[in-house]
Amino acid sequence: MAKRSFPLSRVYGLLEPGPVVLVTTARKGRANIMTMSWHTMMEFEPPLVGCVISGRNASFDVLRATKECVINIPTREWVKQVVGVGNCSGCTVDKFVKFGLTPVPAAEVAAPLIGECYANLECRVADTRLVNRYNFFVLEVVQAWVDAAIKQPQTLHHRGNGVFAVASETVKLRSAMK
Amino acid sequence: MAKRSFPLSRVYGLLEPGPVVLVTTARKGRANIMTMSWHTMMEFEPPLVGCVISGRNASFDVLRATKECVINIPTREWVKQVVGVGNCSGCTVDKFVKFGLTPVPAAEVAAPLIGECYANLECRVADTRLVNRYNFFVLEVVQAWVDAAIKQPQTLHHRGNGVFAVASETVKLRSAMK
Repeated sequence: MAKRSFPLSRVYGLLEPGPVVLVTTARKGRANIMTMSWHTMMEFEPPLVGCVISGRNASFDVLRATKECVINIPTREWVKQVVGVGNCSGCTVDKFVKFGLTPVPAAEVAAPLIGECYANLECRVADTRLVNRYNFFVLEVVQAWVDAAIKQPQTLHHRGNGVFAVASETVKLRSAMK
Repeated sequence: MAKRSFPLSRVYGLLEPGPVVLVTTARKGRANIMTMSWHTMMEFEPPLVGCVISGRNASFDVLRATKECVINIPTREWVKQVVGVGNCSGCTVDKFVKFGLTPVPAAEVAAPLIGECYANLECRVADTRLVNRYNFFVLEVVQAWVDAAIKQPQTLHHRGNGVFAVASETVKLRSAMK
């Protein structure tokens, strides 16, 4: 998969539609993955992303300690891996090995990109004021990568209980909205 | 459209997929609507929703003052209204009249439901700590309504510049994820 660096000013178009994402973290050379759907854009540029990561996830402590992660955006062909990653703990298993996913070195952070995902956003924690109360982190995207061949990504949108809507059609209207 | 009260414990399944929504507010008997895509679930029950509302929106001041709003979820047949609402200001126009949308009294808040939307979430502002810095409000959903006839809502997911992905297919996997 040939990825190119993606302008930070356009990152909002990747996350604003609300796709389920895979978040990677790393500590002491050990990488982990979690599935996440509770995120929102908060600023265009530099791109800020707010997200809730439950304290029951192994990734919570690692993110709080290292202040780095990667948001990886999968498309529909990876739905089994998305659910599988969400249903086991990185405490007991290497999820890259278990699910056949490829860790690729990032440019700016220690956490790896997931090679199979069509877009990857390298992030640093920018604000932790709502972490204690809501497990809510504000992340700044510092580097973005996209597979330039994928124009209309069929992203997954979790409706709960393993049911996903697939964004498989597009409608376009003339708009002054950004 | 026959709507029924919807369990608060299941509200996350409506907003977690990341649909574009129409937010209604009201002050002194005058209601307004804005289009919003920057929102995330923050807690299952009571359901908390975090969202960014730009200070350039007329709705910002009204929400901050009244601490009440309704999140209305439209489906694809309303895409023109969604874009239209996002492209004009409630300071100069009555958007319900302009776009032929029906205000319906809410049960718990002064802001109206939009009758044409398949789901409506009545909300109160629960936390304003990140409003000054990010225009980020934490809302608590206090009453939810859903059109029980719509099982697979074709929600709209904004990719930027008036392009929307439509969640028109569903895939289901056995999952332990909530």
